[in-house]
Amino acid sequence: MFTLKVDQEIELQLFQLHHSEELYHLVDSNRNHLREWLPWVDSMSSPSQYHSIIPTWLKQFMNNNGFNAGIRYKGTLVGSIGFHQIDWNSRQTSIGYYLASGYEGKGIMTRSVQALLNYAFLDLNLNRVEIRCGIGNSKSRAIPERLGFIQEGIIRDGEFLYDHYHDLAVYGMLARDWEN
Amino acid sequence: MFTLKVDQEIELQLFQLHHSEELYHLVDSNRNHLREWLPWVDSMSSPSQYHSIIPTWLKQFMNNNGFNAGIRYKGTLVGSIGFHQIDWNSRQTSIGYYLASGYEGKGIMTRSVQALLNYAFLDLNLNRVEIRCGIGNSKSRAIPERLGFIQEGIIRDGEFLYDHYHDLAVYGMLARDWEN
Amino acid sequence: MFTLKVDQEIELQLFQLHHSEELYHLVDSNRNHLREWLPWVDSMSSPSQYHSIIPTWLKQFMNNNGFNAGIRYKGTLVGSIGFHQIDWNSRQTSIGYYLASGYEGKGIMTRSVQALLNYAFLDLNLNRVEIRCGIGNSKSRAIPERLGFIQEGIIRDGEFLYDHYHDLAVYGMLARDWEN
Amino acid sequence: MFTLKVDQEIELQLFQLHHSEELYHLVDSNRNHLREWLPWVDSMSSPSQYHSIIPTWLKQFMNNNGFNAGIRYKGTLVGSIGFHQIDWNSRQTSIGYYLASGYEGKGIMTRSVQALLNYAFLDLNLNRVEIRCGIGNSKSRAIPERLGFIQEGIIRDGEFLYDHYHDLAVYGMLARDWEN
Amino acid sequence: MFTLKVDQEIELQLFQLHHSEELYHLVDSNRNHLREWLPWVDSMSSPSQYHSIIPTWLKQFMNNNGFNAGIRYKGTLVGSIGFHQIDWNSRQTSIGYYLASGYEGKGIMTRSVQALLNYAFLDLNLNRVEIRCGIGNSKSRAIPERLGFIQEGIIRDGEFLYDHYHDLAVYGMLARDWEN
Amino acid sequence: MFTLKVDQEIELQLFQLHHSEELYHLVDSNRNHLREWLPWVDSMSSPSQYHSIIPTWLKQFMNNNGFNAGIRYKGTLVGSIGFHQIDWNSRQTSIGYYLASGYEGKGIMTRSVQALLNYAFLDLNLNRVEIRCGIGNSKSRAIPERLGFIQEGIIRDGEFLYDHYHDLAVYGMLARDWEN
Repeated sequence: MFTLKVDQEIELQLFQLHHSEELYHLVDSNRNHLREWLPWVDSMSSPSQYHSIIPTWLKQFMNNNGFNAGIRYKGTLVGSIGFHQIDWNSRQTSIGYYLASGYEGKGIMTRSVQALLNYAFLDLNLNRVEIRCGIGNSKSRAIPERLGFIQEGIIRDGEFLYDHYHDLAVYGMLARDWEN
Repeated sequence: MFTLKVDQEIELQLFQLHHSEELYHLVDSNRNHLREWLPWVDSMSSPSQYHSIIPTWLKQFMNNNGFNAGIRYKGTLVGSIGFHQIDWNSRQTSIGYYLASGYEGKGIMTRSVQALLNYAFLDLNLNRVEIRCGIGNSKSRAIPERLGFIQEGIIRDGEFLYDHYHDLAVYGMLARDWEN
Repeated sequence: MFTLKVDQEIELQLFQLHHSEELYHLVDSNRNHLREWLPWVDSMSSPSQYHSIIPTWLKQFMNNNGFNAGIRYKGTLVGSIGFHQIDWNSRQTSIGYYLASGYEGKGIMTRSVQALLNYAFLDLNLNRVEIRCGIGNSKSRAIPERLGFIQEGIIRDGEFLYDHYHDLAVYGMLARDWEN
Repeated sequence: MFTLKVDQEIELQLFQLHHSEELYHLVDSNRNHLREWLPWVDSMSSPSQYHSIIPTWLKQFMNNNGFNAGIRYKGTLVGSIGFHQIDWNSRQTSIGYYLASGYEGKGIMTRSVQALLNYAFLDLNLNRVEIRCGIGNSKSRAIPERLGFIQEGIIRDGEFLYDHYHDLAVYGMLARDWEN
Repeated sequence: MFTLKVDQEIELQLFQLHHSEELYHLVDSNRNHLREWLPWVDSMSSPSQYHSIIPTWLKQFMNNNGFNAGIRYKGTLVGSIGFHQIDWNSRQTSIGYYLASGYEGKGIMTRSVQALLNYAFLDLNLNRVEIRCGIGNSKSRAIPERLGFIQEGIIRDGEFLYDHYHDLAVYGMLARDWEN
Repeated sequence: MFTLKVDQEIELQLFQLHHSEELYHLVDSNRNHLREWLPWVDSMSSPSQYHSIIPTWLKQFMNNNGFNAGIRYKGTLVGSIGFHQIDWNSRQTSIGYYLASGYEGKGIMTRSVQALLNYAFLDLNLNRVEIRCGIGNSKSRAIPERLGFIQEGIIRDGEFLYDHYHDLAVYGMLARDWEN
């Protein structure tokens, strides 16, 4: 119920325990789509796992160290987005996200990331936001590119995906660039 | 930033650490007004106290055991509202609230409580919501009375206020009554 | 072994781990009797559950926040009594209790509650003690009534019992009344 | 209030937070007497220290790992006694104690230790209880000797007392000897 | 990988999680040999148990309260040695150890204990180190005797071994004796 | 005392509490030198701060999540090195280090990092090790470059240094490259 409003169509809603079933259903009905680029999909086998995962997300929020929110498009849960953690010394964070198949191409993720950039730079006064995408994940990479992030490097073997490592493209946005 | 929208004018916003200054200012500029019915007002002497209090509120939220939210009226922080705790066995909670002087008489609290009743009964499937008010606090008592709560009793010496005990009126609303 | 002596016949004994079997036996041999008014009876299915429950009771005692004690009548464990929690700001607590069938009508519970009122008002300097009873539980309600508690209200649907809610009568005793 | 009754004159009472002042007074008015053989006396400088120490004692009790109790003689707090910790694998514990000056020579400590031996061997089914005394502390050594403990050794430099190490005599009592 | 070097043949290596398999193999292939004097051997039934035990050892090390290390002889894990806990007030600790069969008679344990005595007295500035051995365990008792420890007593029924208690010989070494 | 031996001159020693003074002295006598590239130098104002910092490092080691070690050159503490954290899913870590002025130019850090690469790839079976250096810190950058790391990107404003952000060069080494 606690949401960050993006626009008339989209809200980002903090996950609470009573969303466990709905969230599991989102993942379970998008397994093939999501596991191509997300390493944790196969490990999710029942809604009850979210009964212990969601409190760890809320604990992170409690410690001012990031959050996980559901993306609601016209009320339907269609994806997830959040800050992985926050480095308050260097005032930076990184954003992670995924979207159900069938909801791509509507600008949902671009608008959501945009809202989080405003939250990061204007509310939290952070200086830098990072996004990392699998080098072959062109749909995901389109988000930071469209929003004006700069690609800063390629982390070789940056992530393990079930049976192989893949490289990650690192994108960065700085407060001074966002404000312009 | 994470809010429960009440209507076009009012939002209930989960308190986060970066609201400490703003929240302290609200309390500090309403001391005389608030201390008449709230026992903790005198103990608040600096914004930094909220650096430890706000995480305990978020921990409560994390444990699915209630929350504390700021009431924003046209963007301005004008009060606080929340669930003290949630009894999941008997599916009940109680609501606490306060409002800055100068914002009374606009229906802000009635509308906020109404939104939380919807949240409690429709989202969380609770069966009962309770409100306790100082017996002499007619402005506070008007809220549950206006919304159709039933007065169920008077708890003698239910709360200590700086130098005296006072009695508390107990009001209850049940799911089956709210839905009608 | 650590007991609060009530009189020549009755002692209230803090539960320790080595009482697990004995306590389970008390509950198990009184299931039909106890489950009429206690919501947790069906969930107790083995003595080992008390290996985790008793430490939480002792933790409560450690935090100066109430306790759970066995009622020993001429040495035999015949019931349980305790303070649910203690509100040190408003200096109040509430008492819960149950008794094995076959031991009613001897004044065991009245004398035990009396001893806890002395403990609450004289040792701990509390100001108020509350007892809540199911509205239809006439044997339980007789205890506070006999001791001069005042009935202060009826909490509608105050507790869930397996398949239905029932109302709770709230009784209060204040220090100034007890001393007289 | 929770006590282990020794006899008509003596009770051993679990320390709770509200005993802090009384316990500090006992120590403070016996400093010269107690510091001769107890290493922690000089570190106690205010009653408030017991606000954090007593919960650690109760936590020990909660974990079934020993306890600390006040010795009440005709109602007055005159000393302390307890089990340091309990080794449940080898079913053994050790007893520590001290007595205010002016109360020696009445058999208070001998009777208290006797009661704890019954508690250890009969209630907790332990197999061995140990007492360690400073080798020059003849009053303390008289207790286990009077009760039939066997001296099993001398631990050289077993304890540090402010400015010097001293040797400790180790006494042991076994269940099979106590029962005879 | 983090080791305390004893000499050209022997290193004492802090156990880390990735040693679980190797350590289990050591115990499992020496069951008959080890269980004669060690009470925990029968309880070890799979390498995964060490996934929770090794962190408790490292936590002990973290708290400056002792450690557990593997004894590597020419690179092979042949035994274990450590400090059970450290009493910083009285600056003393005790050493425990065991060795695989087939590696006795090479002076491995004598040299390892010697290195730990240097660590205790020279690096940590302790005053006393204790070793306890089963009274009938002549191979184990030979270690402190060879190194000049003094036997200070016999703890009757000091340890439970599966189906019987046995007595423990207590040996002590003081800093002032070691330095000579 | 627990060390990872690099060669005849260099050992990496896990920091324990009793190294607090020595470590503070290292930092304090190299303030100007170290603060040019390390953000935490100004916050260190007394040896006692290490009494809480060193346990957090040991906790990290306990959780198999990295470590902090002192670099001893011919016995003298001349620097620090460690793994920041370990991502066991993707089997990667990053190395941080610093060296006292006066000890540069001897290959101390190159040899130390080399030893940690062996530890990471051969003992822990990691797949990737990362080093990040301030873009203007040519001495630090020379270490990964000399060892054959590949520069993979420049993280803009990657770290805050007292009064300004600076960019970080990211270097990566993969297991398959190290083994060749």
